[in-house]
Amino acid sequence: MRRIFLRVAYDGTDFHGWQVQPEERSVEGELNKAIKELTGEDVEVIGASRTDSGVHGLGNVAVFDTESSIPAEKFMYAINTYLPEDVSVVESKEVASDFHPRHCDSIKTYEYRIYVSRVNDPLKRRTAYRCPVDLNVEKMDEAAGYLVGEHDFKSFCCVRTQAETTVRTLYSASVFHDDEDIVIRVTGAGFLYNMVRIIAGSLMEVGMGKREPSHIKEVLEGTDRTLAGPTAEACGLTLIGIEFPGLE
Amino acid sequence: MRRIFLRVAYDGTDFHGWQVQPEERSVEGELNKAIKELTGEDVEVIGASRTDSGVHGLGNVAVFDTESSIPAEKFMYAINTYLPEDVSVVESKEVASDFHPRHCDSIKTYEYRIYVSRVNDPLKRRTAYRCPVDLNVEKMDEAAGYLVGEHDFKSFCCVRTQAETTVRTLYSASVFHDDEDIVIRVTGAGFLYNMVRIIAGSLMEVGMGKREPSHIKEVLEGTDRTLAGPTAEACGLTLIGIEFPGLE
Repeated sequence: MRRIFLRVAYDGTDFHGWQVQPEERSVEGELNKAIKELTGEDVEVIGASRTDSGVHGLGNVAVFDTESSIPAEKFMYAINTYLPEDVSVVESKEVASDFHPRHCDSIKTYEYRIYVSRVNDPLKRRTAYRCPVDLNVEKMDEAAGYLVGEHDFKSFCCVRTQAETTVRTLYSASVFHDDEDIVIRVTGAGFLYNMVRIIAGSLMEVGMGKREPSHIKEVLEGTDRTLAGPTAEACGLTLIGIEFPGLE
Repeated sequence: MRRIFLRVAYDGTDFHGWQVQPEERSVEGELNKAIKELTGEDVEVIGASRTDSGVHGLGNVAVFDTESSIPAEKFMYAINTYLPEDVSVVESKEVASDFHPRHCDSIKTYEYRIYVSRVNDPLKRRTAYRCPVDLNVEKMDEAAGYLVGEHDFKSFCCVRTQAETTVRTLYSASVFHDDEDIVIRVTGAGFLYNMVRIIAGSLMEVGMGKREPSHIKEVLEGTDRTLAGPTAEACGLTLIGIEFPGLE
């Protein structure tokens, strides 16, 4: 029995999130089904990050165990044969049989993509959020700076969270132009439920001039969800990648 | 009665092209339907470019006549209210009642977008073509240079064409990197049926090393469709914009 590690990319628009749910289309469900068709084995992949409905992935991670003799590096091509167009395995390799992508240290990077326009852009609508008013990117970037480091992110967490602690560490948080788009990029060791989307909603309030950049510091210190901005729409969010420092 | 000019953007993936066809979903059909719902008038918009099934638009153009009193510049917002998410009016204005977007001089710009990967990228699949092998962009750009100017583009035209002449003028043709993508960009005064996709297919043959850049010159001079490369897939093509030099 070998444990196979997969990096997975997906357009989250037509998925009901990562996690298997009855009657709903999920990325995990498509992976389980494809591996079953390929190997004949009933597998339940273990995902690193259970992204929400509508959120995209460029480098989410899943592992599964198999008796198949397919070379680990070839699994990606074999599984892709059975996957729909909106999900794709972009890397496969063997890992230690006790490697669990949620029970080990990891560094995740997310991007929240925004375009400013008074009308819908059909070619961006699936992967970026349309903001109807101008945003001050410099102020948003200044505000993002307050989030870097170890903090209690309770204000930036969905109140329904089941997390034992709301303390998390962000290694970086920045806001920049990417051609005509505005990108919020955050890297950290674990994120709370809806945390990046609440950060995005709060930084957009700063960008619109509704709040000063230093307001973000007050929100952090207040540890109260009602102080932060709204949860930004899922379509703008992409899990860019996950690093596992302990993995070779 | 006023003639209203619209710039129209669309994700062509789920359309059976621009032109109205019975039983099929078309961009033109969605525009006619939206305007009917808005004004109550039975209109048939006149399009500048009848893009194929799967081809995208950022700035295609359509005109229609109306008795409505909606200010010309506000039509875009009003029509968008009735349009599906994959098509959007990005500009509206009044033009002379005899302006016809196909019966006047125009300059069109197309881009053909390619990503090189051995696996499908779910976030690019709708708007870029996946090439499984490396492409030499410098050689493609050199080859594209032979296309600039007035030429008989018969070799780069679908044999089913109804065009009276296959002579066309390209003002520019270049191939360049855009982040990880490769973009073929052509600007010209009118294009033959499938011309940009046959140019893209031929330039990719050069990029793969199957042909030398100078081969493109021989293809042009041979005026024979069988000399050129294959018609590249529709998904990579976007009509970027159309200029009308005679329009204010």
